Amino acid sequence: MQVKALLFDVFGTVVDWRSTVSRALAESSDASEDWIAFAQEWRAGYMTRTVQTAESGQGTLSVDVMHREILDEMLSSSRWSHLWKIWDEDKRAQLNLVWHKLDGWPDSSEGLYELKKRFIIATLSNGNVRLLVDMAKHADLPWDTVFSGELLGSYKPNPKTYLGAAHHLSLPPSECAMVAAHIKDLRAAAGHGMRTIYVRRPTEDSPDVRDAVKTKEEGGEVDLVVDSFLDIIPAIDGRK
Amino acid sequence: MQVKALLFDVFGTVVDWRSTVSRALAESSDASEDWIAFAQEWRAGYMTRTVQTAESGQGTLSVDVMHREILDEMLSSSRWSHLWKIWDEDKRAQLNLVWHKLDGWPDSSEGLYELKKRFIIATLSNGNVRLLVDMAKHADLPWDTVFSGELLGSYKPNPKTYLGAAHHLSLPPSECAMVAAHIKDLRAAAGHGMRTIYVRRPTEDSPDVRDAVKTKEEGGEVDLVVDSFLDIIPAIDGRK
Repeated sequence: MQVKALLFDVFGTVVDWRSTVSRALAESSDASEDWIAFAQEWRAGYMTRTVQTAESGQGTLSVDVMHREILDEMLSSSRWSHLWKIWDEDKRAQLNLVWHKLDGWPDSSEGLYELKKRFIIATLSNGNVRLLVDMAKHADLPWDTVFSGELLGSYKPNPKTYLGAAHHLSLPPSECAMVAAHIKDLRAAAGHGMRTIYVRRPTEDSPDVRDAVKTKEEGGEVDLVVDSFLDIIPAIDGRK
Repeated sequence: MQVKALLFDVFGTVVDWRSTVSRALAESSDASEDWIAFAQEWRAGYMTRTVQTAESGQGTLSVDVMHREILDEMLSSSRWSHLWKIWDEDKRAQLNLVWHKLDGWPDSSEGLYELKKRFIIATLSNGNVRLLVDMAKHADLPWDTVFSGELLGSYKPNPKTYLGAAHHLSLPPSECAMVAAHIKDLRAAAGHGMRTIYVRRPTEDSPDVRDAVKTKEEGGEVDLVVDSFLDIIPAIDGRK
């Protein structure tokens, strides 16, 4: 792979949103709730809306605004409306920022430091710049630069994102590799000529989807499959 | 100063373009030339064009393309046309990339590592993203993120640049400080509500301009005047 830059999906690939968000929610109230379910519903709302906005061009490009809209909708729903009384405006604003301080997977920080020695490493995330910068400081993620959906004018999988990142790095897409724990993200990147590195994260793609992802050498569709960022360089070197 | 982010001009403020470019030129040929004059003319062309583009909206937003256009114009001029024969196409393309690998001032890398512990630190430069990323790797500049003219849609002093950076950091301009060795850059930033830190670099603003810059406390126009990035935190703490 003649790759000069690695572009990383962030939520789920670099950071473990599920456990960080559910823990912050649990610490925010004495109520006994299924906080994992709450976090998943919040995240599902984000997935639906970013795809809609990527396709339609309608809707906010600030994930902070989007997360807050979804939170307020959830707190108006029958399932969660009892929490509306517990969380006042300040509390809701504060909870919304939990998405800025997500913990990395155990290999994320160390892996990125290693990868940075050989490649340009950058986010290619739907998160806004401030969110990604706050997260990098929190989880010690040494990005060379931060590409966000808002900065590039749309959300993934809109072509503006993949092609915009390659353009600003002055690279053909074939010299960029998208790194993600979501096969859909990699399919979109490959559709624009990027190389693809699939990271198996335990709580992202469902097990049947995850187990079905194979490399091109194995008859599959991606360039590499790894279980950790620390496996990327050995895997690339092993293929030479 | 209730500042959360420091935005840095790069050419001249963080890196010493004059000595790096003139040295690279000297190493590129056996000809005995005034390479400082060559570097200064190249740089002056950039200054003129970025301001024209910031005002008119016409012209390339890629500094790589702009640097190359200026180089080719210089090599067509009577003063430098004898170099056209010495430098072939590959050589001219390679020389153009010298702007990606400029050396930092002696305090730049250490100062940025210190400042990064307390602030968000980002470029706010007319350079393109790849140029700024290459320079950061070369000179060990640990940016939290890279804002470039091309990414924000114009060059400084167009308001899109100052206001765009503040927007993407989710900060009011008053919580951002522009750090530059050029008083004009700071005046433009202040015009949009940013705080201002003037860095006295020996070869940037002319001595009479440089010596006239005073802090507001001294009856001048900027928030801080320093001689090194290492002086910024002591100066801020000294004012509390």
